[in-house]
Amino acid sequence: MASEPYRRAVAGDVEGPDDTRAMLDEIEEISVERGFEGKSVPTWQKQVTVRAIFVSMVLSVLFSFIVMKLNLTTGIIPSLNVSAGLLGFFFVKTWTKLLAKSGLLNQPFTRQENTVIQTCVVAASGIAFSGGFGSYLFAMSPAIADQSPDASTAIDTKSPGLGWMISFLFVVSFLGLFSVVPLRKIMIVDFRLTYPSGTATAHLINSFHTTEGAKLAKKQVKALGKFFSFSFLWGFFQWFFTAGDACGFASFPAFGLEAYQKMFYFDFSATYVGVGMICPYIINISLLIGGILSWGVMWPLIDAKKGDWYSADLKQSSLHGLQGYKVFIAIAMILGDGLYNFVKVLGRTVFGLYNQFNKKDIGAPSNDPNAPMPSTLSYDDKRRTEMFLKDQIPPWFAIAGYVTIAIISIVTLPHIFHQLKWYYIVCIYIIAPALAFCNAYGCGLTDWSLASTYGKLAIFTIGSWAGASNGGVLAGLAACGVMMNIVSTASDLMQDFKTGYMTLASPKSMFVSQVIGTAMGCIISPCVFWLFYKAFVTLGHPGSAYPAPYALVYRNMAILGVDGFSALPKNCLVLCCVFFVGAMIINLVRDLAGKKWAKFIPVPMAMAIPFYIGSYFAIDMCVGSLILFIWQRVDKAKADAFGSAVASGLICGDGIWSLPSSFLALAGVQPPICMKFLSRAANAKVDAFLAS
Amino acid sequence: MASEPYRRAVAGDVEGPDDTRAMLDEIEEISVERGFEGKSVPTWQKQVTVRAIFVSMVLSVLFSFIVMKLNLTTGIIPSLNVSAGLLGFFFVKTWTKLLAKSGLLNQPFTRQENTVIQTCVVAASGIAFSGGFGSYLFAMSPAIADQSPDASTAIDTKSPGLGWMISFLFVVSFLGLFSVVPLRKIMIVDFRLTYPSGTATAHLINSFHTTEGAKLAKKQVKALGKFFSFSFLWGFFQWFFTAGDACGFASFPAFGLEAYQKMFYFDFSATYVGVGMICPYIINISLLIGGILSWGVMWPLIDAKKGDWYSADLKQSSLHGLQGYKVFIAIAMILGDGLYNFVKVLGRTVFGLYNQFNKKDIGAPSNDPNAPMPSTLSYDDKRRTEMFLKDQIPPWFAIAGYVTIAIISIVTLPHIFHQLKWYYIVCIYIIAPALAFCNAYGCGLTDWSLASTYGKLAIFTIGSWAGASNGGVLAGLAACGVMMNIVSTASDLMQDFKTGYMTLASPKSMFVSQVIGTAMGCIISPCVFWLFYKAFVTLGHPGSAYPAPYALVYRNMAILGVDGFSALPKNCLVLCCVFFVGAMIINLVRDLAGKKWAKFIPVPMAMAIPFYIGSYFAIDMCVGSLILFIWQRVDKAKADAFGSAVASGLICGDGIWSLPSSFLALAGVQPPICMKFLSRAANAKVDAFLAS
Repeated sequence: MASEPYRRAVAGDVEGPDDTRAMLDEIEEISVERGFEGKSVPTWQKQVTVRAIFVSMVLSVLFSFIVMKLNLTTGIIPSLNVSAGLLGFFFVKTWTKLLAKSGLLNQPFTRQENTVIQTCVVAASGIAFSGGFGSYLFAMSPAIADQSPDASTAIDTKSPGLGWMISFLFVVSFLGLFSVVPLRKIMIVDFRLTYPSGTATAHLINSFHTTEGAKLAKKQVKALGKFFSFSFLWGFFQWFFTAGDACGFASFPAFGLEAYQKMFYFDFSATYVGVGMICPYIINISLLIGGILSWGVMWPLIDAKKGDWYSADLKQSSLHGLQGYKVFIAIAMILGDGLYNFVKVLGRTVFGLYNQFNKKDIGAPSNDPNAPMPSTLSYDDKRRTEMFLKDQIPPWFAIAGYVTIAIISIVTLPHIFHQLKWYYIVCIYIIAPALAFCNAYGCGLTDWSLASTYGKLAIFTIGSWAGASNGGVLAGLAACGVMMNIVSTASDLMQDFKTGYMTLASPKSMFVSQVIGTAMGCIISPCVFWLFYKAFVTLGHPGSAYPAPYALVYRNMAILGVDGFSALPKNCLVLCCVFFVGAMIINLVRDLAGKKWAKFIPVPMAMAIPFYIGSYFAIDMCVGSLILFIWQRVDKAKADAFGSAVASGLICGDGIWSLPSSFLALAGVQPPICMKFLSRAANAKVDAFLAS
Repeated sequence: MASEPYRRAVAGDVEGPDDTRAMLDEIEEISVERGFEGKSVPTWQKQVTVRAIFVSMVLSVLFSFIVMKLNLTTGIIPSLNVSAGLLGFFFVKTWTKLLAKSGLLNQPFTRQENTVIQTCVVAASGIAFSGGFGSYLFAMSPAIADQSPDASTAIDTKSPGLGWMISFLFVVSFLGLFSVVPLRKIMIVDFRLTYPSGTATAHLINSFHTTEGAKLAKKQVKALGKFFSFSFLWGFFQWFFTAGDACGFASFPAFGLEAYQKMFYFDFSATYVGVGMICPYIINISLLIGGILSWGVMWPLIDAKKGDWYSADLKQSSLHGLQGYKVFIAIAMILGDGLYNFVKVLGRTVFGLYNQFNKKDIGAPSNDPNAPMPSTLSYDDKRRTEMFLKDQIPPWFAIAGYVTIAIISIVTLPHIFHQLKWYYIVCIYIIAPALAFCNAYGCGLTDWSLASTYGKLAIFTIGSWAGASNGGVLAGLAACGVMMNIVSTASDLMQDFKTGYMTLASPKSMFVSQVIGTAMGCIISPCVFWLFYKAFVTLGHPGSAYPAPYALVYRNMAILGVDGFSALPKNCLVLCCVFFVGAMIINLVRDLAGKKWAKFIPVPMAMAIPFYIGSYFAIDMCVGSLILFIWQRVDKAKADAFGSAVASGLICGDGIWSLPSSFLALAGVQPPICMKFLSRAANAKVDAFLAS
């Protein structure tokens, strides 16, 4: 393991507390799993119960409505993992309580079953997002095409239809699932990635099912509950001040208005403060460094070249201008880091397999599922790893599944979108697993899924390949859908696997649940969309109740994309190459520097994320880090024992708040107050205006 | 003492921690005074050093400038007690360190000397406020008279002049000093009133001079320092968002915009949260009840009578309308409570004296300075009371001083303001001690000085007595000055006496320091004003850099006042009588209910304050109470030991911030951002306006 400083550093923070736990185990019962020792883990077939599937279906419909509404109004979708876990628990718990009273209960409600529900609901409602009903799919419709600057012909549009949408989703949505399965062990057991949302959900589920025996677990539940309530109430409180754009705490220019313009501000998001507490320090620092490098240095420098490198008349959102640099440099850096790690892991896997076949006994320990586990692992980790590796899904099954579905997809898709040639799809399916790996890996580090970024990449590459005259716009959008479904599913389901790992759910039951959930989602989501589409005739019109803002954005990107990489602004491709290679070099330095120094070298993947989005969430996460750091300085034992429970509470509370807030939005209840931030000059003007 | 439930309840919270301290004393060194045991207290002559007077003079000039600037810009003056204590320490400490290095130091710097400086500076800079340069005094000038609706004749104006202003201040400013001296023991030792600002300043001064021995004191200093920094930085942070009226955290509508209109909001003032932590629970609850009763119930009901009880066309600030009810009902309730307690204390004093003269040995313990102290007092309190009662200022001296100065004043003042007849002044001087008692008492309970309210009362009574044709306007304003000086000095200096009590400063040295400070203030303040008056020709003009808003307000009140109480809106006098009597009845009930129940009965004095000002500071204080309450539930020992240190830190940090913020204002540095709160409808309008 000495040659793996990168992984160690990334997982350093997780190992720290676990070491301490192992130590503390001897003093007091501090392990979560010991609290569950009395309870046997049911076989995987018993984890996927009928009642679980039924509850999942009800919740899937509920969440699909919420996500669809958000898709079509603002396009910003919060993570609903936590809500799914919590609501799943309450539904089944009530059900089992009622059954127990009537004496009909034949099977107790276990945390594995809870995880199965959560996984199924996430898989189903995830499709409401990755199905692109607010983005690429709806962008194909004539209603959106009419709003674009360029006149569009029949070859560039496709009206929504229930039939083809369901078919499309069925042939593309299962691929992510199969591409993720072989990566499972690498991400969760070998890399020990954090997956903050998944970890938080697992903590929540564990806390619901904890037995009386575990003293600390009860205390942790109490801490989680306290911060859950705080975070929920804080989200509720914030809501009142968000009447309008750029209103409320989420737009608080804590470092001044100029910094706010450059996306440096603290947005008071309990979710990201919690995520920051779970993520290793180096990740949070990397995010901040990336934000300062891009928004503080690079973008202002490039902005100064306006009129020289690119036309000064462009809109701010135009990919021909500064926005283009932001998006493509970020993508280049992510691809550089992802590719480096992909190649490295592939190399090590091949080398490990080679050793295994030749010498049997000198296998690479971290890649051999049968190797003895390192003795430094805590009781929890030992037991979890053991359960996680018990019900193996054989690699041949995953590969065979992937290839089969890919073939079906390649045959079927050109019939749905005749602009999308079969060889485009083949290319996507060859590259997709690498990108799925990148996204699942990045998500594990930072909790941030970049599915839509990869989707945009597909729009540009396939769109320019097809060309404008051959329906490149529609080909690009369809390709975006194919790509996004794989990549998004990869990160979502890996989060679920992390939850499953921590709740001792069987990978087999998880997989089955995901298959069922995906199938449900492929039917539920188009139906829900169809309802909206038929009910509101103004769907997609700007200024209406459902403007679907991202649909137009995606269409414009596709129109630009057909011009190919030559449409990129000046020097953008050069900069992309620099950052692509730079990311690889930084990774190499990390690997060569040794464990001691590697933890001070930033992670390129994390650095790239704020390039496009801005640093506000990085600042939240650094605040989380700072809180944990100070806490550890004041009381290390307590911070280690309760840190992740507090963080989970913060994440979960804010997550659950998204549910009532969505209901408020659905009911048309708008917040009453806008907390606005104006410069002194603007404020003087506004005061004069309001007085008149 | 069983017949004194009111006092006990009021001081209940202070006694609680002290009991605990006495108990803990046996376990660990927790007393502040034990930490100072090694250091001898210098004689009172040695507490008032030449260097102390010099430093006081420098600081007095500094603070007079700051207060004058604030007088003439917004009219809102924060308490500068704490700044005075801190800066006094740093000045003299640096001085003594330099002298010690050069070997010339012949006297160490003691906390008593520190208190003397603080007292002297407060006395001097207090006159910059109570001198009325931004209110009643400047209101007399023709520049302000020209802006009033009524044409004013020569009899109603008086141009500012350096000579008469200094003379005026000299003959009125010392009266407050002499009226306060006899009340000293009653307020501090018998009633054990909190005087939050004074207590906080004392904690600060003690912390600076604490010896190595006292472990807890050091810990307390650390806690104080931590919250001091927090509070200071919070004040600094808040400043950035206050570009314009109703901007920033101080205007945060935490309970919605409607509640904000009714003055129910949390204004994020660290000062008042700290004050709330020091004040007894019942005071904070009383404030809240008063706020709800007035702004939640009474004012809306009276507002509904608009057009019936009073003209609907009036401006909101007109005393003929709703504002009149607010001001006069509050005054009535304060007078009712004050008078009840004044009569009660007077009765007990007379009774005690009578007993002392007749039976010698059965004296009322709480009024007899030679009686043995109750054994429940902690070491700190015993030692402090002992020192406080050592250097007595004989009552005959105070009374003789008061009468002498009153006679000089009565002879001199009509020469300065010929509209102010000698018999008006006699009346004021007869009533003033009672009002000074009320104000010092109320301030001790709530930290809120109502000097300007009593001043307004004088405007109305004397103004209406004189009548419009006899220069009632000017007579009223002059009377306001006479009254305000006495009443304001009474509360300010009582705060200082509390500081002196807690730092073992001799009452004699305090008194001398106050005399010197007052004399300095009588010369410095008019000179500073004269500088502004001569430097800025537009002084007092609305829209200029120095609009002196309160000067016009005071002049308008005086113009209304000459019409007498008959000018009060309908039913206002009836309501005033009801609340006057009500306050007395509540007090009587408190006294009769017994100690157990009295602590649940609100204090009328505290209830009346939000009537006029609103509940925002009451909500701050309740938040402070809540924090202390939760802290005591979680860890009683720690809360009791560190509560007042934390509260002091909060008050002091915010207090010190007022210094740099004043400098920023003087330098013309304005905050860059306005954090504005708009209703959804207004926000939509503003967004449309800004976009155009």
